[in-house]
Amino acid sequence: MNLSPARRGEEIVGVCDIGGTQLRVALADRAGNLIGRRALPHVTRAADAVIKRIADELESLAQEYQVTLQGIGASVPGPLDAARGVILFSPNLEWHEVAFTEALAARMQVPIALDDDANCAALGEQWRGAASAARDAVYVIVGTGIGSGLILNGNLYRGATGGAGEIGHTTIEPNGPLCSCGNCGCLEVLAAGPALLRRAREMGLSCQSTSEVIKEARSGDSTAIQILQVAGRYLGIGLANVVNMLNPEMIVLGGGVALDARELFLVPAREEMRRRALAASAEHVRIELARLGDDAGLVGAARLVWEKLETED
Amino acid sequence: MNLSPARRGEEIVGVCDIGGTQLRVALADRAGNLIGRRALPHVTRAADAVIKRIADELESLAQEYQVTLQGIGASVPGPLDAARGVILFSPNLEWHEVAFTEALAARMQVPIALDDDANCAALGEQWRGAASAARDAVYVIVGTGIGSGLILNGNLYRGATGGAGEIGHTTIEPNGPLCSCGNCGCLEVLAAGPALLRRAREMGLSCQSTSEVIKEARSGDSTAIQILQVAGRYLGIGLANVVNMLNPEMIVLGGGVALDARELFLVPAREEMRRRALAASAEHVRIELARLGDDAGLVGAARLVWEKLETED
Repeated sequence: MNLSPARRGEEIVGVCDIGGTQLRVALADRAGNLIGRRALPHVTRAADAVIKRIADELESLAQEYQVTLQGIGASVPGPLDAARGVILFSPNLEWHEVAFTEALAARMQVPIALDDDANCAALGEQWRGAASAARDAVYVIVGTGIGSGLILNGNLYRGATGGAGEIGHTTIEPNGPLCSCGNCGCLEVLAAGPALLRRAREMGLSCQSTSEVIKEARSGDSTAIQILQVAGRYLGIGLANVVNMLNPEMIVLGGGVALDARELFLVPAREEMRRRALAASAEHVRIELARLGDDAGLVGAARLVWEKLETED
Repeated sequence: MNLSPARRGEEIVGVCDIGGTQLRVALADRAGNLIGRRALPHVTRAADAVIKRIADELESLAQEYQVTLQGIGASVPGPLDAARGVILFSPNLEWHEVAFTEALAARMQVPIALDDDANCAALGEQWRGAASAARDAVYVIVGTGIGSGLILNGNLYRGATGGAGEIGHTTIEPNGPLCSCGNCGCLEVLAAGPALLRRAREMGLSCQSTSEVIKEARSGDSTAIQILQVAGRYLGIGLANVVNMLNPEMIVLGGGVALDARELFLVPAREEMRRRALAASAEHVRIELARLGDDAGLVGAARLVWEKLETED
């Protein structure tokens, strides 16, 4: 008996998502449906080994599903030089100047497209998720840090040197606490996971992790609820600034903290945004939680490589 | 003797710029050179009369230069619905829901393109001014209010409902003074003309206008200089946020206050931006004063209508 679902003749690409703790790979069809996804904890973080593993896993998937991969899309940690396919720096993986595309292309002779995690997740949510078909959408990821991916006029907007979307380092309180970037009062130092935990400890909660703070809030602890509200409101100030500057039709909130705390975080953020942004833009924008969860990066990576293949046709 | 310089056979459009105190009209060639510009103080602000005057003046210019206008580009007060050609609201002119394009097209049977003053000035500076050829540029106008026009990926970015670019209403001090928009601590209430004058009075200067404050600063008055520095630094925080979010290659500062105070305002703004924005983006962006002055809107309006004519060809 052959259990492997043959997809012979179908147009299929390979996709991967390199996270801080695990590598995810899958196949994807033209519509962004993911096939045979695998989540693999890192055995080693060495760039060469991770890239070899991506090639091996995608080849194994292609064999299992009896398909020929037409290209590979990759969601990688940033910052990166997408045009050259080089990952400039990744603190989590301790990567520096990794020539990702070149190294992967040496193993797999197909077109390769890559972008950073926030941009890929933004593309994924816009293609198949919460921002479906929105022409102007901002995907904000709230986890250990805060970042964003911008879809403007229907396309990913990367900025002049690929540095766009750094909402986590916009200033919210000019004299606020020192951020890891060297600036004071960044959104990230006020509203990301570590800020929740810091505030919980200051207020006497005996939590060991951000997820414990969120769990306490969900079980009704008023201090923990208040901590999420304060962080949510800071996020709302940052979102109001984005709404006034970019007038998007959709803001999608993703990332571990946002998707764990959900309404406890989303509601105060939305309220504060509405209070501060100009009415015309505030009334037009929807703020919703991400729908694709961990798959957003893979789906966005599929979109990236299909777009590349279409352009090159 | 015929002194009028005939431009017969040349491709020419008409352009206009409707300001709060005056109407400006001119002809423009394919390269954005302005011909025969006229600055006309408003006799009446009634929309019908202003639109009739635009038609009359452009017809008179066309006759004088012996050309046939191929289209009209207009820089108009916003907010507006550019697609429908309707000016929704103009506090200075007391206009509400003015069907500008329809009314002008009834008098001049040519294609008409329009956009708001900040967007037109941004286009003008990008085409022929300080942001020449920049793919990603932000034009910030600092006068009685603060606004901006965004050129992203080489094109004007208007947002989902034409509301993009409202940098003046991004929050800089969450608990700052109340802004006319209803929010607290907006950039506009901290760094535009009225803020300079308010602070000058609080600090005991006997100035009657913003330009007097700037004049005092230029003649060396340390209090006036400090007032400009404080406002410039607030602007720098707003610019740092823009640099982190949009990673532009160019920021152009225009508007009465910025172009009057010049380095006294630009230098502290630039310093504060550099202090706060992420290094990679901060090092890449240039911040310069606008070069086209009052002509930026007319030049941008010419760009708008030439683009419309090319698209429709």
